[in-house]
Amino acid sequence: MIKSLSVNLKIFRIEENLLAENERLAEENRQILGKKGIVAFNLMGGPGTGKTSLLEKTIPRLPESLPCGIIEGDVAGSLDGERLARLGVPVVQINTGSCHLDASMVRKGLEHLPLERLKIIFVENVGNLVCPAEFPLGTDKQVVVSAVTEGDDKPVKYPLMFQVASLCLLNKVDLLPAVNFSVEKFGQNIRQTNSSLKIISLSAQSGENLNAWVEYVISQCS
Amino acid sequence: MIKSLSVNLKIFRIEENLLAENERLAEENRQILGKKGIVAFNLMGGPGTGKTSLLEKTIPRLPESLPCGIIEGDVAGSLDGERLARLGVPVVQINTGSCHLDASMVRKGLEHLPLERLKIIFVENVGNLVCPAEFPLGTDKQVVVSAVTEGDDKPVKYPLMFQVASLCLLNKVDLLPAVNFSVEKFGQNIRQTNSSLKIISLSAQSGENLNAWVEYVISQCS
Repeated sequence: MIKSLSVNLKIFRIEENLLAENERLAEENRQILGKKGIVAFNLMGGPGTGKTSLLEKTIPRLPESLPCGIIEGDVAGSLDGERLARLGVPVVQINTGSCHLDASMVRKGLEHLPLERLKIIFVENVGNLVCPAEFPLGTDKQVVVSAVTEGDDKPVKYPLMFQVASLCLLNKVDLLPAVNFSVEKFGQNIRQTNSSLKIISLSAQSGENLNAWVEYVISQCS
Repeated sequence: MIKSLSVNLKIFRIEENLLAENERLAEENRQILGKKGIVAFNLMGGPGTGKTSLLEKTIPRLPESLPCGIIEGDVAGSLDGERLARLGVPVVQINTGSCHLDASMVRKGLEHLPLERLKIIFVENVGNLVCPAEFPLGTDKQVVVSAVTEGDDKPVKYPLMFQVASLCLLNKVDLLPAVNFSVEKFGQNIRQTNSSLKIISLSAQSGENLNAWVEYVISQCS
């Protein structure tokens, strides 16, 4: 009773040009950041997987020797930017009006951050498990934030995101007893999609295993 | 410490043409469905909000006088289509390769469903709280599925989705005691975005208040 159709999307030349132009700008961003000695992390994931909460809990745990700034991408509003600015770090809130940040938006964000005195930039992408994966930003590490409340099938249903990721944070593990989620199955699905992808299971809410992620961030800056 | 930037996206003529062409095809779908006396629902929402689980629990509760078919949209794979086909209803699984279903894909789906003997079609869109809102499909009712695990701020962060919706299903209310979510605040955020949007709070997992949604579906078919 099931019929499967694959739809071949028309690829417009203008779309190819858009992606090529984005790639060029991302490379420029990479060089700008590299020259300043700044390490940048692109946090991606579906809506409500806890990207902002993770940053709220991560930033106070970083040593003073690693000052950070934030580029916060949202379709609309500045709720998340306001939450993060309360930590006393410089935040640029970007309203994309669309489904992802691109490299030109991040460039604008960089122009408004005090790069001379930063060592880390966290980019929080629009909550979307599809489109941000197609637009590299020039960041050093791509971090996909998944949540146990989303289900363990996400790596096979949204493969590109897990393929471009350097690290997977599996968030909200404090809710494991309440949801139908197999950590083992999630790991199998990850390996099927990107066999080298490292997973850190944690909870921004309870603080469980948060240090493993903080240590990962610090290790990238040495 | 916060700076807000609004990024004006370049709108390409080809993109305008794409949306206009989609609108035209959606209107044709609407007429095809109308002539057959079929009521169609477009289920949208972020990844893992429980759209497939809702359909699994809804379909067995519908009367035999309302036979239904399903168009299942996913970036990749057929996990959800297989789950739904187990219910014994006709399912067309569409792999979009991209971030949303469009009206031409739904047209292809309709061609593979036995329209003569159906009264309801459920379209399950790609898990994405942004892009599907921009692409009407010709369905009668647009249903946004939100989950309490996503947080109560989603209506103001993803306004277009809540503006195009005819109904909001607030799913996973069985998890309310375990998460930081205010039903009152969510309601306020909905009213701020779309003052006439009806909300049904329920749990596909526990079955709580599922009948309110089933009754809504039946009421649309009379």
